[in-house]
Amino acid sequence: MLSVAVVDATEPGNVGTIARSMKNFGLSDLLLVDPPELDPEGEAYGFAGQAREDVLPEARELTFEELLSEFHTVGCTAVTNEDATSHVRYPFQTPAELADDLASVEAETAVVFGRERVGLTNDELARMDQVCSIPASDDYPVLNLGQAATVVLYELRELTLEETQHPDERHERADQQAIAGLHDQFGDFLEDIGHPDEKRPKATRLWRRFVGRAHPTGREVRTLRGLFRRAGQRIEWAETDSSDGDG
Amino acid sequence: MLSVAVVDATEPGNVGTIARSMKNFGLSDLLLVDPPELDPEGEAYGFAGQAREDVLPEARELTFEELLSEFHTVGCTAVTNEDATSHVRYPFQTPAELADDLASVEAETAVVFGRERVGLTNDELARMDQVCSIPASDDYPVLNLGQAATVVLYELRELTLEETQHPDERHERADQQAIAGLHDQFGDFLEDIGHPDEKRPKATRLWRRFVGRAHPTGREVRTLRGLFRRAGQRIEWAETDSSDGDG
Repeated sequence: MLSVAVVDATEPGNVGTIARSMKNFGLSDLLLVDPPELDPEGEAYGFAGQAREDVLPEARELTFEELLSEFHTVGCTAVTNEDATSHVRYPFQTPAELADDLASVEAETAVVFGRERVGLTNDELARMDQVCSIPASDDYPVLNLGQAATVVLYELRELTLEETQHPDERHERADQQAIAGLHDQFGDFLEDIGHPDEKRPKATRLWRRFVGRAHPTGREVRTLRGLFRRAGQRIEWAETDSSDGDG
Repeated sequence: MLSVAVVDATEPGNVGTIARSMKNFGLSDLLLVDPPELDPEGEAYGFAGQAREDVLPEARELTFEELLSEFHTVGCTAVTNEDATSHVRYPFQTPAELADDLASVEAETAVVFGRERVGLTNDELARMDQVCSIPASDDYPVLNLGQAATVVLYELRELTLEETQHPDERHERADQQAIAGLHDQFGDFLEDIGHPDEKRPKATRLWRRFVGRAHPTGREVRTLRGLFRRAGQRIEWAETDSSDGDG
């Protein structure tokens, strides 16, 4: 079971944004240490989207000590230590590594985010079990609080989402027979348009590579095949007409 | 070269949030189609963090037609088609797949995000080159605009970031010899504390598994080894003292 804890945030809008991202990625248990006032008419609820109906009103306020004693805690921070000479912010994991790590563990875990300007303090991080840090620009690695939480929850989605909105197949590739048929049709098309014999193998290879990279869907193959066939027919009709005219 | 385009956003704060995330993940070229007014004293600049100094003031306003004619466009949407019978929102790629895909292509590419409530329209998406969709909860897949952009830019970071804030090694594991030394020390410790002979192999295995999963740093190994040694010494001294006292 995965929870999200926010320590000492000052902007209600950020709490709302985090609640929304939690709902987007299948989490529901929001823990708040020293939260700002969350006015149902204010920004927290305004930013929460559909999470205003459940995640936000059901958020639990608790003390930092309660958080530590009830949960396996993962502190999130942009600022890490450079090496093993300090253990406050080292070793740390990226969100993707954290997802792999937590996948094999059954524990009440809280992913913990700190206050807007300074994040989690050294004292707070030192008392947590793991450290997580989002890889970002060396020049400007500090994400907005809501954005940082969203990235971490996005990476943890495999642990929290049973189903996404996506269909099982995101790309329904045509079967190979249909693609072979498209290649045959393209060969006929080259013939129909009178592409020079000696240039056809080159054009055929080019077309094969082009189609090969695109992994066409069945519908794409059928449509393209139909268009090439139609082009051949048009040429044939036009030639028949003109020979009729000539005759 | 990767740009970010925002079409017809209404909330200046969202534009600012996107500018900040761009800077966090190493992008600088922000394209705005029909943007809201971006008051330097208002929310766009308030939410932009350090991007208020460059990404936001240097953003370029352009028309949708200009966007399409100048860039290879990737439209981002939470709502996809289910199968190949419609091509407006299908096939689509996840942000991770898009990152792999764009890695091998040299093109002026714009990742395009739509307006807050309804995203990109079918007409807009139909005219773009690729479609990208973030996997999220089947119950509530629609992320806030700023959050959606952040997740996509996070996934594309390999293409845009030369260096992250992280040290090259995020986990400096102790060398195997040091770890072997820790195991020896633990063996001595079992002896020093008088752990029964017949139980030592089991305790030794347990300890080896425990350490094996934690991949300790050099500092952790040295510290633990020192603590076990010290425990042994204390026991020895105490026993010497008490035998002195007895003697």
